[in-house]
Amino acid sequence: MKTYLDCIPCFISQALEAARMSSEKEEIHRKVIYEVMRYLERVSFNGPPPKTSREVHHIIRKITGLKDPYKKVKDQANKTAEKLYPILKKMVIESEDPLLMAVKLAIVGNVIDFGTTNRFNIDDMIKISLKHENISNTAYRSFLNALDKAKTVLYVADNCGEVFFDKLLLEELYDRNKKITYVVRANPIINDVTIEDARNAGIDKIAEIIAGDAGNDKSSPGILLEYASPVFLEKLGTYDMVISKGQGNYESLSDVKRKIFFLLVAKCPLVAKDIKEEIGKLVLRVKG
Amino acid sequence: MKTYLDCIPCFISQALEAARMSSEKEEIHRKVIYEVMRYLERVSFNGPPPKTSREVHHIIRKITGLKDPYKKVKDQANKTAEKLYPILKKMVIESEDPLLMAVKLAIVGNVIDFGTTNRFNIDDMIKISLKHENISNTAYRSFLNALDKAKTVLYVADNCGEVFFDKLLLEELYDRNKKITYVVRANPIINDVTIEDARNAGIDKIAEIIAGDAGNDKSSPGILLEYASPVFLEKLGTYDMVISKGQGNYESLSDVKRKIFFLLVAKCPLVAKDIKEEIGKLVLRVKG
Repeated sequence: MKTYLDCIPCFISQALEAARMSSEKEEIHRKVIYEVMRYLERVSFNGPPPKTSREVHHIIRKITGLKDPYKKVKDQANKTAEKLYPILKKMVIESEDPLLMAVKLAIVGNVIDFGTTNRFNIDDMIKISLKHENISNTAYRSFLNALDKAKTVLYVADNCGEVFFDKLLLEELYDRNKKITYVVRANPIINDVTIEDARNAGIDKIAEIIAGDAGNDKSSPGILLEYASPVFLEKLGTYDMVISKGQGNYESLSDVKRKIFFLLVAKCPLVAKDIKEEIGKLVLRVKG
Repeated sequence: MKTYLDCIPCFISQALEAARMSSEKEEIHRKVIYEVMRYLERVSFNGPPPKTSREVHHIIRKITGLKDPYKKVKDQANKTAEKLYPILKKMVIESEDPLLMAVKLAIVGNVIDFGTTNRFNIDDMIKISLKHENISNTAYRSFLNALDKAKTVLYVADNCGEVFFDKLLLEELYDRNKKITYVVRANPIINDVTIEDARNAGIDKIAEIIAGDAGNDKSSPGILLEYASPVFLEKLGTYDMVISKGQGNYESLSDVKRKIFFLLVAKCPLVAKDIKEEIGKLVLRVKG
């Protein structure tokens, strides 16, 4: 997905949010905003938004000297989701169709995204996920078909907190004897899952965990093939099935020439328009 | 009210909106955004937001060559409100307290504001206005006291469409033999009322209409004393009562050293915080 002019005010709002999380000094916030604006004046709009985010958050880290501004927010999201996990697991086990319930809850988990402006109530979303009519039947049948044939599943993660919702679906895949690789960010970027977060959630017991990006100090909130790790590229080329979570990965992977199942909740109007779905709806979409 | 760093993304969003209303060419939109960002890098945050908006919209007009990008939107708002007017007038006449109803509807009219991001449903707002508990009793009693003693009323207008809601209140004041001056913008700025809009709504039959600003080609969406017309300043100093409509005028007039009654619906979180009221609520507030 390309970057739009509408992304500019959103990049600036996000930079201000991150600057405020990093420092209480208004002069620092101002410096961040000004430097981000100067950067945005020369940015290319041909790439996907995570390519710009990658540079914007690099600027913020450079000015504030803080490597992980969202640390507190991420820890809180993980804590909240970890507490919810047993209730969610029970919902999956007691469901008529545990796999469908796990897919829906994995999408619902995408709502815990502190990197975008609109926030939805997680309890409401969980209730909504209980209703059957919330993801496309056609897409789900295609998902089941692909899963049935797949021995290997590449699962591209998005946010902290959400990792515990992913776990529900990963466990369903694991129970079906799939070999799973869970793809996270090499470095902290907004509230995205890192190797440490995935390990703390116990994902390493059911899946291999790899960093999707090449491990310099600039991760992006969506995997960009040009900065991807060789191990990710190799698996993207060879794995039987690819599942991608969240807006950021949709923005960066939606034009890739292979079949990918996108699980997300659209929070940005441009992503919603691109994926032809309303803001706030649970989306399972197959592309490529 | 001072300008905050949070206003920056909002100025840019507004500039993009205005640029798109002015031209279909993306290169023009891009030029507008870039020039606005370059201006915002050197802006002072000590003045109120309308001072910056004044320059931002001047940049947009300079680049697009269009004097009144919101013309269509304004005409539509005026048309919609003109159609509503007879129903609203009936509501006032049949009300137990016609003046209170007119005050509330004048505030409700402020919801027709195409210059801010959040938009509220006008029908819902009209229904809400019917409930008594929606404006402060203390403020309304103070309003009644001031009105009782006043021979002259200075009424600072905000938006198109809203002008027909103002008319309901102006007619109540006129029926009470007040000498009224209705203050509009000298030039088009966002969707604000100009002399032409006020005349088309028939305000000239019950009030004198003046431009609040000094008549160069840069009006601001909120009267700034440093650019105000001499006639406005004279009346601000001598009139018995001042009524100010909308967020923009609140932002620019809330620190003025005289008693002013502010009627508005807060649409921006910073204005809501400054006025200590929730977003979307009807506000009657006396200051100074």
